[in-house]
Amino acid sequence: MPCNIYANLLGGIMKFSQNIGKKSSLSFILLLITFTFSNVLFADTDPLPSWNDTSSKKYILQFVQTVTSPGSDDYVETEDRIAVFDNDGTLWIEQPVYTQLAFAFDRVKAMAPGHPEWNDKEPYKSVLKGDYSNLDKKGLLEIIATTHSGMTTEDFELIASAWFQTSRHPRFKRSYSELIYKPMVELLDYLRANGFKTFIVSGGGIDFMRPVTQRLYGIPPEQVVGTSVVTKYELRDGKPVLVKMPEIFFIDDKEGKPVGIQKFIGKRPILAFGNSDGDYEMLLWTTTGPGKRLGLIVHHDDEKREYAYDRKSHIGKLDKALDVARKNKWVVVSMKDDWKTIFPFEN
Amino acid sequence: MPCNIYANLLGGIMKFSQNIGKKSSLSFILLLITFTFSNVLFADTDPLPSWNDTSSKKYILQFVQTVTSPGSDDYVETEDRIAVFDNDGTLWIEQPVYTQLAFAFDRVKAMAPGHPEWNDKEPYKSVLKGDYSNLDKKGLLEIIATTHSGMTTEDFELIASAWFQTSRHPRFKRSYSELIYKPMVELLDYLRANGFKTFIVSGGGIDFMRPVTQRLYGIPPEQVVGTSVVTKYELRDGKPVLVKMPEIFFIDDKEGKPVGIQKFIGKRPILAFGNSDGDYEMLLWTTTGPGKRLGLIVHHDDEKREYAYDRKSHIGKLDKALDVARKNKWVVVSMKDDWKTIFPFEN
Repeated sequence: MPCNIYANLLGGIMKFSQNIGKKSSLSFILLLITFTFSNVLFADTDPLPSWNDTSSKKYILQFVQTVTSPGSDDYVETEDRIAVFDNDGTLWIEQPVYTQLAFAFDRVKAMAPGHPEWNDKEPYKSVLKGDYSNLDKKGLLEIIATTHSGMTTEDFELIASAWFQTSRHPRFKRSYSELIYKPMVELLDYLRANGFKTFIVSGGGIDFMRPVTQRLYGIPPEQVVGTSVVTKYELRDGKPVLVKMPEIFFIDDKEGKPVGIQKFIGKRPILAFGNSDGDYEMLLWTTTGPGKRLGLIVHHDDEKREYAYDRKSHIGKLDKALDVARKNKWVVVSMKDDWKTIFPFEN
Repeated sequence: MPCNIYANLLGGIMKFSQNIGKKSSLSFILLLITFTFSNVLFADTDPLPSWNDTSSKKYILQFVQTVTSPGSDDYVETEDRIAVFDNDGTLWIEQPVYTQLAFAFDRVKAMAPGHPEWNDKEPYKSVLKGDYSNLDKKGLLEIIATTHSGMTTEDFELIASAWFQTSRHPRFKRSYSELIYKPMVELLDYLRANGFKTFIVSGGGIDFMRPVTQRLYGIPPEQVVGTSVVTKYELRDGKPVLVKMPEIFFIDDKEGKPVGIQKFIGKRPILAFGNSDGDYEMLLWTTTGPGKRLGLIVHHDDEKREYAYDRKSHIGKLDKALDVARKNKWVVVSMKDDWKTIFPFEN
């Protein structure tokens, strides 16, 4: 609305100026020149400074320009500019263990004083010793259930927020909230500046991500789709609370991602960015829709600055999606070659 | 961003004009006057013209002014201005049967040529005869399952959209999409103009509402929370589709409403508007949060212009919520007394 006011006002001024006389006509021409020049200046500012000038970057810029140019055959209305991003390994680090798992292990340690029996009971015993090598799927699920349920959603939000302040990544010795990818944050900003609505669609826990997504990525809680547990409405002292239960409500991974997109967003995205086989179905769902579409994959190939892993990795395995990337015209973004900077703290 | 460009440009023009000469200075002053005058005009325009000047309207205006005034103790940041609205009976008509049920009955009739066996099989037989009086819950659920599953989400969207074009309400002889409440559409506009993000939180089907909410209420699909069925990802000819299954995924009614708000929005609203006991928990969840909150209930008490029903109604029963409204400071909006106009076609 304010835009329209400015635009109309501007139109009014121009007409008005034209009616005044020669001097104003001159001013009108100068104005037009200024306007054009400022646009050129604007275009010269690189919206993705942490990206090297490789084909990946050019492809992204070209795509955005095409779908946002009103004259273009591939023009997409603002309301349909939906972009979805995986989180683990796409927006933030996922090695050597998923951020949320690091949180769960830290929670076990924080909760241990209230549970002396854990010193002799697996899987807690191992976690308390810092030995995660013997944890099987059953043990992991128990750890997740213990640390992610039994409290109200509001209490969990406080716990998760506080953890991000104190957490330390074993290799980088920084909070996990600093271990986000700067090129991706720039891309999110760039898309939003071009009328896109940006969403996270992650296999990670929705309640774990939401407390920090606005601060880290500029993505509000209502634009975060993720895995969640059953939540129960209860009255405590006459006041309602929502309690997290130790039971899965929705798994937002693999074929769950297109389903989650349909449930939570209700629109088919035109851009999807992932990094693993867990994103395969989301990429396929996004890029097989009508009109111009863009699928992208972060390829972790930079052992020196971050990690190098793909087909054999137990976390963020990228195999099937890598095989079909070329055929499907998905852009494989090389962390090593395409990203000038990886983390915000590097500059 | 474009706003800033316009604003800067405008600033530039003003400075530029000042440097040109007297004539342009005059034009600049005239411009300022025009601008100021248009602002005054804007402020004097009643944002809720279909509401009578009763206490309900004043209470709403006062609330919005309080939470949006930066100096106020009850100021709420834009990102936390979340307003949730029930749909059936709050934004659109729900008598003599829910709109979605009218759709389901019409669908049975449209699908009947492909199902000759329905002529002798309940509940279809009765529906095809237009006799809905004997339908029990089991029969209704079967009708809903038959008409709302087995197709892709994209096909269902087309079916629902088309129905809204051709549907006719038995009493008003108009499409159901015309039987929305004008005062509520104005309120949604007014809230959005004041930085609120407006959501639908309805017991109705999410896939049934989404195709029309943008057009009817200015609410995009991603801001609609509702009841939904399980959706299955499938490949057909190598391309993914999402198929609606005859199985409930989530019931967004009663205690499901606060849960749905948490799952889909992830923020506690500061304003909730409902009309029945199905909204009781949503109203309680909204209004028992910290800070200034507003709960509202549409009371259908206008038999002449719409319908009059509350405690005894089988649709939109309003009993428990009406009992506690005064104690909880929920505003009971009388359709008869508080609304000057009900439907958009009245003017």
